[in-house]
Amino acid sequence: MSKQKRVTSYDVAREAGVSQSAVSRVFRPGFSVSKKTREKVVATANEMGYRPNAIARMLITKQSGMVAVILSSRANLNYPEVLSELNKELALNNKRVLLFTLDDADELDELLENIWTFQVDGVIALAAHFDSKSLDLFAKHSTPIVLYNRNVPESNANTVCCNHDKGIKQLIDLLHQSNHKSYLIIAGPDDSDVANERREIAQNYLHTLGIQNTPVIYGDYGYKSARSALEDWLKTNTLPDAIICSNDVMAIGVIDEIKQNLNLSVPDDVSVVGFDGISAASWYNYQITTIQQPMKQLTKAAVDILMERIENPQAAAEARVFTGSLITGNSIKTR
Amino acid sequence: MSKQKRVTSYDVAREAGVSQSAVSRVFRPGFSVSKKTREKVVATANEMGYRPNAIARMLITKQSGMVAVILSSRANLNYPEVLSELNKELALNNKRVLLFTLDDADELDELLENIWTFQVDGVIALAAHFDSKSLDLFAKHSTPIVLYNRNVPESNANTVCCNHDKGIKQLIDLLHQSNHKSYLIIAGPDDSDVANERREIAQNYLHTLGIQNTPVIYGDYGYKSARSALEDWLKTNTLPDAIICSNDVMAIGVIDEIKQNLNLSVPDDVSVVGFDGISAASWYNYQITTIQQPMKQLTKAAVDILMERIENPQAAAEARVFTGSLITGNSIKTR
Repeated sequence: MSKQKRVTSYDVAREAGVSQSAVSRVFRPGFSVSKKTREKVVATANEMGYRPNAIARMLITKQSGMVAVILSSRANLNYPEVLSELNKELALNNKRVLLFTLDDADELDELLENIWTFQVDGVIALAAHFDSKSLDLFAKHSTPIVLYNRNVPESNANTVCCNHDKGIKQLIDLLHQSNHKSYLIIAGPDDSDVANERREIAQNYLHTLGIQNTPVIYGDYGYKSARSALEDWLKTNTLPDAIICSNDVMAIGVIDEIKQNLNLSVPDDVSVVGFDGISAASWYNYQITTIQQPMKQLTKAAVDILMERIENPQAAAEARVFTGSLITGNSIKTR
Repeated sequence: MSKQKRVTSYDVAREAGVSQSAVSRVFRPGFSVSKKTREKVVATANEMGYRPNAIARMLITKQSGMVAVILSSRANLNYPEVLSELNKELALNNKRVLLFTLDDADELDELLENIWTFQVDGVIALAAHFDSKSLDLFAKHSTPIVLYNRNVPESNANTVCCNHDKGIKQLIDLLHQSNHKSYLIIAGPDDSDVANERREIAQNYLHTLGIQNTPVIYGDYGYKSARSALEDWLKTNTLPDAIICSNDVMAIGVIDEIKQNLNLSVPDDVSVVGFDGISAASWYNYQITTIQQPMKQLTKAAVDILMERIENPQAAAEARVFTGSLITGNSIKTR
């Protein structure tokens, strides 16, 4: 570490020919100061390598200015976009993202200890698995948390969700109305809550429509996993009328598998639907009929809910659910 | 904000029936404590909502435990993967990622003020534009910085880079050896340093090979931008033998544009190469010949260099350059 003496606000004030309180005002959000003074102070501070001591300030305000964002490696999100949007929205509220990833539920305790240590003002968890016991810890530590695309029905959690139920039923209705009789579900990994939710909605709704025992095979949300799951399955089964994929990337894998290895095409020989509305789903070679998640609204709602709870920790828990938009591609055949 | 009285280490010690120093040792990295004591203290601390006061500790150690990662919105990276890898590597070194995005060079001053305020231990900048003047500020603030895929030749910056020069020449050699005579370059945005670097390498190398005045058109690194740039260009020009795209996503756009609007195919009618080695480049419908960036090595090197400079700020500036791997797809015709 550098052994240099730290430059203080007094040093900057002396050099710039202003009062120490003027220096202090320049570096505190919400305090006014003349443009001329501000420019002089900033230039001098940069010249001298002055760091306004935010950490000391945090001790007084008890706000760190940071929000932890927890990414699950099991997340099937347009995660770069979600993260980038969250970052923008939080910056507008003068909060910075401190990033955590959760690869495995076993690591949750360690992750939480880390979160308390950094004294973040709040937490947004992207599709990560939290049981109600972990959520209670947030209440004990007076740290508000918002779950993104994850519902914990038995707890009073703040949540923002895309309406998976409505979206998947809309896709299945399209298939059912155009006379598809036999189905196959390609689900995401069975340790992902969102994957299980999407799979169950599809299974139950097909059952309601009178289609019993729809087979389910599993991928890991990735292109190759969907291809090899389908390839394996076709060794002992024939193609159904329609394949319901739990995300767009797996739908892309399925379309390529059907084209390359079976020399058949979508939708002429089999219909395929996806979920998420990623950009690749609209590429000419795929044109998948899918549900687009309203990502900007979801992220903005997550930040709004969190900011309200940072201001008022006593505010009641809130769940906001957004309906996705149907993207009509060219992957469903009219039978 | 919560008006609750903050729980102290003394409160936890009393409740757990241990000494205050035992509590303190549990929450300080590098201090040993028996498993039994540790478990009792952690359980009690969680029960009581105790937050070990990391911020006070930071005032003493002068290390915040945070590394700022600056993402440029102009970056053409496999950025979710890069970010996720950086996060993993930094966590192994007991550092957390504090995220910043830079949409516009005008915002740099504000961003830097923010970075000094949070007193991060170091900075990794992903493909963001820094001139040597901004880099000098980091030296003044004794904050080490590593640039990822961005070189500032006139400064003494720490950098990790993929060898764009070698990669692009390798692709052009393949095209040239298989008798391609006429070329078109589809470059990334002209305010991106990496895009300009890739474009110049291609232009100069084609010139060296005796191919003069290769036309250049511009996209924004995105699928649609490449399609419409090519569509416009073809209104007054004919297809060349080969199209050199500055990234894989634009190469995918070009392949689809050629198929959908010209009813021609790659590589039979025109050859296409990309850059980056993203997963979609290997999908059956594309199979692009491209250069894969050695992302894991790049990220690990960036973190290694940074950690060394955090330990020893006097260490000499270092640049590490990694050669990408040629991915042989099916997008080059043997003419």
